[in-house]
Amino acid sequence: MNNMTSQTKKIKAGIVGASGYTGAEAMRLLLRHPAVEITFLTADRKAGQPVSEVYPHLGGYGLPDMISVSEADWSEADVVFCGLPHGTTQEIIASLPERLKVVDMSADFRIEDPDTYAEWYGHEHRATDLQKTAVYGLTEFNRDAVSQARLVACPGCYPTAVLLALLPLVSNKLVDPYDLVIDAKSGVTGAGRGLKQNTLFSEAGEGLSPYSVAKHRHAPEIEQEVAKAIGAIASDVRVNFVPHLVPMSRGELITAHVRLESGVSVSNIRSAFETRFAEEPFVRMLQAGEMPHTQMVRGSNLCVVNVFEDRIPGRAVVIAAIDNLVKGSSGQAVQNMNLMFGLEETLGLEQAPLFP
Amino acid sequence: MNNMTSQTKKIKAGIVGASGYTGAEAMRLLLRHPAVEITFLTADRKAGQPVSEVYPHLGGYGLPDMISVSEADWSEADVVFCGLPHGTTQEIIASLPERLKVVDMSADFRIEDPDTYAEWYGHEHRATDLQKTAVYGLTEFNRDAVSQARLVACPGCYPTAVLLALLPLVSNKLVDPYDLVIDAKSGVTGAGRGLKQNTLFSEAGEGLSPYSVAKHRHAPEIEQEVAKAIGAIASDVRVNFVPHLVPMSRGELITAHVRLESGVSVSNIRSAFETRFAEEPFVRMLQAGEMPHTQMVRGSNLCVVNVFEDRIPGRAVVIAAIDNLVKGSSGQAVQNMNLMFGLEETLGLEQAPLFP
Amino acid sequence: MNNMTSQTKKIKAGIVGASGYTGAEAMRLLLRHPAVEITFLTADRKAGQPVSEVYPHLGGYGLPDMISVSEADWSEADVVFCGLPHGTTQEIIASLPERLKVVDMSADFRIEDPDTYAEWYGHEHRATDLQKTAVYGLTEFNRDAVSQARLVACPGCYPTAVLLALLPLVSNKLVDPYDLVIDAKSGVTGAGRGLKQNTLFSEAGEGLSPYSVAKHRHAPEIEQEVAKAIGAIASDVRVNFVPHLVPMSRGELITAHVRLESGVSVSNIRSAFETRFAEEPFVRMLQAGEMPHTQMVRGSNLCVVNVFEDRIPGRAVVIAAIDNLVKGSSGQAVQNMNLMFGLEETLGLEQAPLFP
Amino acid sequence: MNNMTSQTKKIKAGIVGASGYTGAEAMRLLLRHPAVEITFLTADRKAGQPVSEVYPHLGGYGLPDMISVSEADWSEADVVFCGLPHGTTQEIIASLPERLKVVDMSADFRIEDPDTYAEWYGHEHRATDLQKTAVYGLTEFNRDAVSQARLVACPGCYPTAVLLALLPLVSNKLVDPYDLVIDAKSGVTGAGRGLKQNTLFSEAGEGLSPYSVAKHRHAPEIEQEVAKAIGAIASDVRVNFVPHLVPMSRGELITAHVRLESGVSVSNIRSAFETRFAEEPFVRMLQAGEMPHTQMVRGSNLCVVNVFEDRIPGRAVVIAAIDNLVKGSSGQAVQNMNLMFGLEETLGLEQAPLFP
Repeated sequence: MNNMTSQTKKIKAGIVGASGYTGAEAMRLLLRHPAVEITFLTADRKAGQPVSEVYPHLGGYGLPDMISVSEADWSEADVVFCGLPHGTTQEIIASLPERLKVVDMSADFRIEDPDTYAEWYGHEHRATDLQKTAVYGLTEFNRDAVSQARLVACPGCYPTAVLLALLPLVSNKLVDPYDLVIDAKSGVTGAGRGLKQNTLFSEAGEGLSPYSVAKHRHAPEIEQEVAKAIGAIASDVRVNFVPHLVPMSRGELITAHVRLESGVSVSNIRSAFETRFAEEPFVRMLQAGEMPHTQMVRGSNLCVVNVFEDRIPGRAVVIAAIDNLVKGSSGQAVQNMNLMFGLEETLGLEQAPLFP
Repeated sequence: MNNMTSQTKKIKAGIVGASGYTGAEAMRLLLRHPAVEITFLTADRKAGQPVSEVYPHLGGYGLPDMISVSEADWSEADVVFCGLPHGTTQEIIASLPERLKVVDMSADFRIEDPDTYAEWYGHEHRATDLQKTAVYGLTEFNRDAVSQARLVACPGCYPTAVLLALLPLVSNKLVDPYDLVIDAKSGVTGAGRGLKQNTLFSEAGEGLSPYSVAKHRHAPEIEQEVAKAIGAIASDVRVNFVPHLVPMSRGELITAHVRLESGVSVSNIRSAFETRFAEEPFVRMLQAGEMPHTQMVRGSNLCVVNVFEDRIPGRAVVIAAIDNLVKGSSGQAVQNMNLMFGLEETLGLEQAPLFP
Repeated sequence: MNNMTSQTKKIKAGIVGASGYTGAEAMRLLLRHPAVEITFLTADRKAGQPVSEVYPHLGGYGLPDMISVSEADWSEADVVFCGLPHGTTQEIIASLPERLKVVDMSADFRIEDPDTYAEWYGHEHRATDLQKTAVYGLTEFNRDAVSQARLVACPGCYPTAVLLALLPLVSNKLVDPYDLVIDAKSGVTGAGRGLKQNTLFSEAGEGLSPYSVAKHRHAPEIEQEVAKAIGAIASDVRVNFVPHLVPMSRGELITAHVRLESGVSVSNIRSAFETRFAEEPFVRMLQAGEMPHTQMVRGSNLCVVNVFEDRIPGRAVVIAAIDNLVKGSSGQAVQNMNLMFGLEETLGLEQAPLFP
Repeated sequence: MNNMTSQTKKIKAGIVGASGYTGAEAMRLLLRHPAVEITFLTADRKAGQPVSEVYPHLGGYGLPDMISVSEADWSEADVVFCGLPHGTTQEIIASLPERLKVVDMSADFRIEDPDTYAEWYGHEHRATDLQKTAVYGLTEFNRDAVSQARLVACPGCYPTAVLLALLPLVSNKLVDPYDLVIDAKSGVTGAGRGLKQNTLFSEAGEGLSPYSVAKHRHAPEIEQEVAKAIGAIASDVRVNFVPHLVPMSRGELITAHVRLESGVSVSNIRSAFETRFAEEPFVRMLQAGEMPHTQMVRGSNLCVVNVFEDRIPGRAVVIAAIDNLVKGSSGQAVQNMNLMFGLEETLGLEQAPLFP
């Protein structure tokens, strides 16, 4: 690792789709990563612009100007981070030289079943062979595969928080996987930097609303991974998933209302979490009674988790919080890249949360 | 009513506990109410101060200065609005002349069972006889009793939204009353104007957290009313109730995850709502697919409601939004006062929501 | 006036450009105005849509669906409120039947000099004859002309606050009109509902920035009116005007750093304000030391003003706050309409501010 | 430096007054500083509590529990950061062993003249001898003295931004030092973590107000440093300084309206800035026309600066933005500590800004 971090052997990283929020966050993390050098940034509609115009807060760091994807010199990269909107990513990744490692932050390679993909994303998948090689990058539950992968599909922001909180429970048969009620809340960056009326300050500010009730694309992704964890067919698992848009920029909190399996208590769940997360550098199990808060993780790659008694006998409430742009996207991407290159998993991700 | 609204016969209203947010909101609504005149305002710790010091936005309307409760001349009032913290209200109301009508916005007279009150509020109730005469002021479900009442206990903000959305369903046996999962979200005014670290701008802003998970005082209040609606004993009904603090000042949205009774569909629920709310001036059933948003009701006495399919078969999602300070408190109080004095129920409450 | 407010003789109002924030605010105010009936709403890109889709908070009030301007039946209106973007307004207003009164909330008829208009708005004015008949609708300083006007050009939001605060001073030779430093701050609705990157929640939230420094279109408007007040040529007056975008939806506050004329003290200014505003229903001079706050006026047609000593001898600080969508736009428009139809100036504008 | 950063020779740092926002920010920066180890944290009212209770976002980093000042073992520190409220700091620092270096983030040692201190802070200074040894820690203008200092008084947040922007101008006689109009805007953390009504979320949110108009304690501090820069007596310099409270947690932006000395143009000012800041690691001069934005610096130790033409001939507008908790307080403190210990000035301060 000493050699890896020396100036002459830095990993060359290109960011494709650098003008979105996940791209910007990848820039922020990578420009201070001791083993990485950013070699190009693509953003078709911003091609030719300096970073200081696209993201003024990242001006002054000597980053390269934006170029179009077609201008990218792939030989200048060891790894590519993809922050493109879903759908456009598939063909670009399919066309890349095989030697390039790819960390995809889009939704394109998360869904394994082509029919499910087509149903939820509105078109046939255009790189199904590549899809078969993709590793689902929920690092904590897939470390070995990620380490060996060429293409990692980073989970959606919601699935990251949901699965970190629920996989230890469903895989240990502590809660009923067929009665998962997941009430989710996200900051507005989750909707991206695209221009939409509902994410204007004056529309999203000072108010709260649900959206995509029981129709959000992260639901089948959660179902796929829960099904895998319990050895079921994905189409047999259905979860309630209701996201809400919260007037804050960053942060995501999921409140999972779960039914305990017979004989299971909240303290069993607490123990399961403590055992599972004891060695995890980025998952922090809170003390009994401590409330997860998005402000505990803002700007960091952390996930905080806790479990609470419910008033309804046989039920419990599991709550987790992440920063949707870090652990929910670009931070987890860097975490995966670290593994893919044999680096320390936490490298470049040591920042403490920013509060207030 | 013409006589009631003429200058010479205005209802004289005193506000006790006028320095809190519910008191201020009562002032805002009553100072433009065509049939009401505000005759005194009490706030013990602000006694002697003009309104312009306590609430600068209400300076310039000729409102009386704050006085202490002990200075109040009860003969100068036909009705008293109480916005005191719970616990302090009981003895004050018990000491009032019998001819005075009372609209209580505190929690003191909401819980009918003295043991339940003592368990949740930490002390014995000190006016149990008076409690027996109090009418639970969820106007839409208790109009006749409110019209005849001397003392109305206005519901808590959360129970108002929850019960408007769920009572039509449990009373018609459309959903299972023993599996109500209520994920609630509130703006920060819900925590009052008292000085607390967690409601500072820099603590509550840009973040989201749950609080009082499965331990909030509004849970037993909801259980009491659900039990009444289904003819059960309150202690036999237990609801999941998990509130979250949202970085906005006003607004409350509840997401109820409900289990349908056998044979019931979402369209049955929609029909039940449409029937029940068709004539309600302050409850607005949204079109299929329309998302309730707190911004649809801010500053108004409205409640918006909708129901959605769930992905889990046999489940549905019911969502309602109110302004916690208006329909969730002072607006509903004025609505009740209107009934208590034989006025048009909507009088003084016609303001359209303020958006953005 | 009794006749005016009776059901059968309501003033018929059409709103042209109803899908912007000023249009929505005009709807909010007019739908509760006792002497007005809204007869049509135009919004070319939203034509055919019900109000509940364009502005969900105004659904349920029985307002007419949006139509295109070309569909408007002008015979169905006594007055038209124009909330169109500048430039598009001129030709539409020029084509209206002469009997129709017009309250223009756009910038099209504010600038009297055609060259200045062309310089700042980027094209020749296309209705210069009509421009000559337009009355500048700063109600408090132009009541008589407004009362007689057919076409009123409502001032920009910033000029409204600036001129209310400074006209009494420059016209009385209390401050130097050639050294006006105006540091202005506005909520994000001031930028309208159009989709712009810098008004996204995640861009405008949690941050502050200046914009259009010394290049804002409201500067020449302020200069025009200051020049008129002191009997100078507009092009001889130049003001410093630096606006800032503040992370709040509504509200505008201007901090004017002024140089006192020789022998003038802050108490002279206070007296001048008190004299000038004593009878004004919508301008509230604060007590010495009271801080103007946008929250004192939110949702209302009020302007609050105060003056402070400066540390630099011979200087003073004059501060004013308004709600940019009410007094800064649609509220002042209704105020002007009231005068144009001989109604009580405050009719429909009595709402107290909404705080918190 | 290699030795300095090795595990065995880390600088031991204690933080006195760790429960305030500046204390927390010092913790955040120091816990990742490669050459520093935090050895104790004092907070009298939180003594005995773990960091996870006082600042949940900093739980999990192995920081020591809070202790009272009287429990501090000074031998366990090489340097002390003081984040106490002003007034309490003086006696504590005066009692410390001489070998301890002190970085004071309070206001206690900023004002050199005891009478001025007494006038503005309401009591006689209780450590005037120590005051004489204190170095004013505006790093960019005082590097040599800071490097030699035992006690550094870090500037107030506003003076930091103001002086970085104005000292190069007044010291080069480019602007009139007797006509500095400084319109300042700060996020709410500037008011600290103490419980005050005006910093509650529901009071400070969605609104803007000035405060301490021409009476803020940072005015004499600015005057002192401007006077030094021009060789004048502090009491002869008077600046206009009007701060405003902005609904954001972090960030500070100052808009200085300045009068150019005869013959000076905006491009002269630009050149002066470019020359002065070319080698500064933490000051970034923006391109012509680029707007400083607090979001360009949030979470970082950067200051961004720009200058603009004014419409009034002979005037210009100079704008600077910082993060009040970093460059405006704890970051500058760490920057000074680095110099005091012969470390690289940027060590531990390399984080890029967090946006959105």
